[in-house]
Order: sequence, then structure tokens, then C-alpha cells
Amino acid sequence: MRKAYFDHIAATPLHPAALEAMLPYLKEAYGNPQSLHSAGQQAQAAVEAARDAVAGLIGAEAEEVYFTSSGSEANNLAVKGLAQAYQAKGRHLVVSAVEHLSVLNPVKSLEKLGFASTVVPVDRTGRVAPADVGKAIRPDTVLVSVMTANGEVGTLQPVAEIAKVCRDRDVLFHTDAVAAAGSIPLDVKALGVDALSLAGDQLYGPKGSAALFLKRGTRILPQIEGGVQENGRRAGTENVPAIVGLGKAAAIAGEEMEARTARLRPLRDRLLEGLPRLVDHVVVTGRPDERLPHHASFCVEFVEGEGMLLSLDLQGISVSSGSACTSKTLKASHVLLAMGLDHALAQGSLVFSLIDGTAAEDIDHLFQAFPPVIDRLRKMSPLYTQFLKERRS
Amino acid sequence: MRKAYFDHIAATPLHPAALEAMLPYLKEAYGNPQSLHSAGQQAQAAVEAARDAVAGLIGAEAEEVYFTSSGSEANNLAVKGLAQAYQAKGRHLVVSAVEHLSVLNPVKSLEKLGFASTVVPVDRTGRVAPADVGKAIRPDTVLVSVMTANGEVGTLQPVAEIAKVCRDRDVLFHTDAVAAAGSIPLDVKALGVDALSLAGDQLYGPKGSAALFLKRGTRILPQIEGGVQENGRRAGTENVPAIVGLGKAAAIAGEEMEARTARLRPLRDRLLEGLPRLVDHVVVTGRPDERLPHHASFCVEFVEGEGMLLSLDLQGISVSSGSACTSKTLKASHVLLAMGLDHALAQGSLVFSLIDGTAAEDIDHLFQAFPPVIDRLRKMSPLYTQFLKERRS
Repeated sequence: MRKAYFDHIAATPLHPAALEAMLPYLKEAYGNPQSLHSAGQQAQAAVEAARDAVAGLIGAEAEEVYFTSSGSEANNLAVKGLAQAYQAKGRHLVVSAVEHLSVLNPVKSLEKLGFASTVVPVDRTGRVAPADVGKAIRPDTVLVSVMTANGEVGTLQPVAEIAKVCRDRDVLFHTDAVAAAGSIPLDVKALGVDALSLAGDQLYGPKGSAALFLKRGTRILPQIEGGVQENGRRAGTENVPAIVGLGKAAAIAGEEMEARTARLRPLRDRLLEGLPRLVDHVVVTGRPDERLPHHASFCVEFVEGEGMLLSLDLQGISVSSGSACTSKTLKASHVLLAMGLDHALAQGSLVFSLIDGTAAEDIDHLFQAFPPVIDRLRKMSPLYTQFLKERRS
Repeated sequence: MRKAYFDHIAATPLHPAALEAMLPYLKEAYGNPQSLHSAGQQAQAAVEAARDAVAGLIGAEAEEVYFTSSGSEANNLAVKGLAQAYQAKGRHLVVSAVEHLSVLNPVKSLEKLGFASTVVPVDRTGRVAPADVGKAIRPDTVLVSVMTANGEVGTLQPVAEIAKVCRDRDVLFHTDAVAAAGSIPLDVKALGVDALSLAGDQLYGPKGSAALFLKRGTRILPQIEGGVQENGRRAGTENVPAIVGLGKAAAIAGEEMEARTARLRPLRDRLLEGLPRLVDHVVVTGRPDERLPHHASFCVEFVEGEGMLLSLDLQGISVSSGSACTSKTLKASHVLLAMGLDHALAQGSLVFSLIDGTAAEDIDHLFQAFPPVIDRLRKMSPLYTQFLKERRS
């Protein structure tokens, strides 16, 4: 059976060259970067080379890059660390309604410590209006966090415009670029952001690797405290192999992004156009333009995401029904609800996120497998039976 | 030139079998454990098998083991997460004076949030008296944290006795076992601890892997918030390869601990006895008994740790002068100062921590290189010149 993996947003494969770069640090070069002896210094040099490479991908300076263990950790560090560092200035935060839970939940925790927050709405395509951010900013606002791209619906946000609104109001701006970094060009200076999160397992780097960009001169309170690693901003022995893998993957992403996009975008468009024609009552979520180049998402009426996902899995097709971080809660996505979709429709969410190497034949395989899967699921769906009855009457 | 690595406490090499176990998850098995499709479920099964193995090493149940990215993160989670979860009961913490900074610094942060703390002293060998813990406990104490073994001086703490004192007073007890786990037998039930931290890179597992044991029924506030990973107690995509490597290394440690100790203890004893005989004014730090089986530590008078370390490095010998997490601060160790050593002596700290594979020839090599290194450094030392002058007069 042909296998087709359409779940980039859950995890990308590790690029073979990134693994190759990691192997020496999984074998003989096992020193701790904080050790002063040559084994330590060898590890330290590898970490700093990786820092250069990650900085290069996003137009940052190396010393503005701090390694963490996941995109979620980077988001936690940004939101809690910046809010706590600047709380003398004010204790109000602004986030969008479609942020990842690793942004939204830290905001809730901060509220227990006396912070307040305003949630900015999104339109039907999941997009934040910069003017709405401006309206949400108060004199005591210290931080705005709006993601670069949403993993569930692929929508790109007007990050540069939002950053400008924040800059004009002297408010820090963080963007969660975990779903975007490596897939679309990002330049922290051109965007004008103060902080940006990215993760290795979204750009063909290893799991356990991620980074927070923090503009020079920006204060932050460390969330993992202890040793002096990462310039005192993130304690814990550096995960040298993972960091090296992230550096290599970031360098490759910089070189290959354009070619990858050229390969994946037509396949994505074929999905976006083809799937709704193939099966009735399938609607695209997010936007046709201004969306991640490898991302096609839908709501399929009268069926539930989990059923589709498991049925497609039996056909060798891996997809997701939303963020992997919440997939097991089986709740309707807060992202789709914020976009104004009703609960029933949101339950039928289906996300195809292509990886480099996805071929036209994978889409063929999907197009062949998809109609009978939906047909079978709908036959078992009370909602669909009711719909057919109502239509007949 | 012969290479001899005596810096187990900074990082152990990765066991080849652990790397072997990791490789499939660095290559084809790249699914996200939170994904419902088979690629995700394969990853999830690997994570759960590793959880079993780690639990097995410390006599815990699998569901009591939570994976983190480092020992420091596990300590932060334990100290901050338990203090915050139980603060309705009281806001007082007890720690020993020789804890790792990833315990001490979180306590300082909690003090900014209104917590108070008592630091329990240690004796000249770095040991905590259980009775002193009892004296430090107040009606509003919620958590005691005393490490299992100190990485800088090798001293083992009377963990079971301290745990009993805490249990009798209905206070939670956490032990930082990062330097101990994998090197000495640990059974959380026999010890009677509520929480225990361990790290992969101290037991021939990979960097980026660590775990917190948390006794069933114990509440904790997550420090990295977001998705539902680790039963909602630690968000962020699981670092599957690292977790798998930790599991394999833990299983091997369980099987080989006795044999490793039998190999390393005589070499350690040769160091402990030999080095002070080889060079004048070299004193053992910590204890002759009740110390880590692979650990020999000293203070060398009239020289500084950094100079010894760099000079020995030129002879192919890797050692440390204290905790890797603080080595670059070049401050006298808080551990040695707490043990009552004066600043000058504490500056001459030297830690030999043996790895499996350390051979008698490595000790021979060290014993040959050590006297001339110290001789040369002392010739340049104003303190030593003054000492000689005073002795002559």
C-alpha cells in the first residue's frame, strides 16, 4: 500500500543531512558546552555555529537567538518571561483568538498573578486585523502576541503591520512562527518583531530543538532557572545534537525554501481545488491566498475528524484534524470556533500539510481513497441521514 | 597522546545501544506521539515503553514518570510546580545549602512571589543532618528539597531518613537525583520520596532527556503550558528520540550498575588515596564513604581550578572544577563554601568523575601528568611563594 504522510504540522521528517550533522555529537563529541576543557569547547563551538545558522534563517544576530526544547517552551518563555520582565510598566496582554495553546495557557496563568488580557478576534478566514490590535492596546499593555501562521488553517497574519501598530504604541510584539519558520521567508528586522518562536520539527530539524529570537536589549525573565546557559536566559545542559540538527536544518531551509515551495504549492492548490469538487459539502478553511504554501485545510460536513483520520490511516494516509497538541482531547478547535464556524462543522476538520517529497501520486492516492471513506462515514452519520431527509422534504 | 575523560558529572557519553535504539526515531519513525494516525501511535508506543524503563530503574509506576528536557527543567518543575500547587497549605520551603542552582534559583524566584525559605546547613563533608531538616520545617512548610548526591563533592545524602522526617511532618519531599540516578540503586518507594529528578546525560543516555518522578496523587502546576502532553503536566512535542534513548540507557543502567560500580570504585579509591600522596597540599573533599562510586574530588592548595583544568586538558585529560553549569562564572563554588572551606581553598577545586570505560591506564596517565602540572602552576602562584616564605621563616 502506498504511504502518504500529509502531517507536516504534527512533525516533519528529519532531513538526512541534519541527522548526518548530529551524529558526531551523538557519538564521540559528547562534551558539555559549559565545560572549559577541549571536549566542552568542541561542543560549544558546534552550538554557536548552529546559533549563527538559525539567526541566518530569520535575519537575526546570533546573540539574539536562544535555544529551547520545543516551540511550546519558546512560546512560554516569550509570553511569561516578557510579561514578568516588563510588569512594572503594566500588566495587560493582547493575543489573538487563534493562538496556539502554548501562548493562550500562559496568558491564563499570568491572569492568576494579576495580569489582564484582551483577545483580538479573527475574521472568517482566521485573519487578525491590525486595527483591531490597535484598539485592544491600552496604556498598561506590555506585550502583544500574534502568530505568523496558523497550523490548523494555514492562514498567514499581517505580522509586519501588527508589529508596526505595536511599535507605534511602544508595546513589545512576539510572534509564534512555529508553523511558519522554514516554510516562508521571515526577516525579523523587516517584520519589526521583538520576539519570535520557531521549532526544529516544523522545518525538517529534530524534535527537541527550538529557538526564541529576542531583539537585542530586550529583557526577559528565564523560566527554567539554574546555570548560566543561553546567556542566563534558559538553564539546563544544552541539547547539543538537537541544536546542531536545528542549525543544519535551518541552513538547508534557507537554501531550499524557494524550491520546496515551488514543488509543494501546486500540489497544495490541487488539493484546495480538487477535494471540494470530489466530494460534496467539503469547504476550504482559511484563505486561498496568504496561506502556508504546503497547507490545505477543510471542513467536511456530517462527519467527524477522528473518523476520517482513522479511516484514511487504514489507507496509508496520515492527516490531522487540527493541532497535534490537542488532538487527543477531541474537542472542537478553538481556532475554528473563533473563525465563526459552528460546532458541527468544526468537528469535521481535516488538515493536509505536505512535506518535501510529497508527490503528485500521493495526491492521486488520496483522491482515490477519499470519496469512499467519506461515503462510508456519512452512511453511519445520523446528521447526514437527517440532512438527506430534510433535503427530500 | 592518550585521552582520558574524567568528567562524568558534565556529561556521559551516549551508550551505543541507546543511540541504536534512537536511530529509527531520527529516521523513518518521525511521527508526533499526539497524532492519532499510525505514525503517531508508533511514536507514542515508543515513548510509553521508555516510560516503563525509566520507572523500572527507580521502582516507580510508569504513570508517575514525566519526561522533561533536562535535569534543570525537572528540578524547576518540581520546586516551582509543587510549591505553587500546594501554596494554599503554606508558602515555606526548605532546601539544603548544597543544592544545584536549578533548585536554589527557583526558590529565589518563589520568594519574589511571597514564599519564604530556610536553607539547611551541611557538615564539612557536605552532608545534611536529617534532624536539621526537622528543625527547619515550620507549620507552613510545603516542600523540602535535598539532593540525593552532590556532583561537585560526590557526597550522598541520607535521603530515606530525610524523607521520613518530611513524611512525619506531612511535608512533600523532592530529591534532585540527577548526579545519582543510574550510578547508585534508587527505589522511590523504599526511599519514600514524593518527587525525584533524573537526567539522561548522567547515565549514558542522550542530552535533552530527563524525567521527573512524581508520586501518584501528587498535584503539580505545569511550568511549560500548552498541549496535553505528559498528562497535561509538561506541554511541548515529546522529544521521541531522546526519550527512547533515555529509556534504553535506564534499562542498561539497571542491568549494568553493579558491574560498572565494581569496575569504577577501585579506580576511584586509587584516585582518592593516590593523589594526595602524589602531591603535597591536596585534600579530598566530600567523604571517603557514602560517596558516588565513580567520583573523586579534591582541593589543591595554592592553585586555581581553571589553570589546572586547562593544563590537564593540554595533556589530554578532561576534568572539571565544579558544576559545568557554573564553570564559566569562575566563582568559588557555593557547595564548597557551605562546607566551610575558605575561598582560597575552594578556588582549587578539582573533580574527577569516571565514566564506564575509564581504565587503570587513564589513572596512570593522570598520575604521571599531574605532579608537573601542579608544580608549574605553583611556581607561578604568589600564594605559594608566600607560603614557602612563611614556612622558611
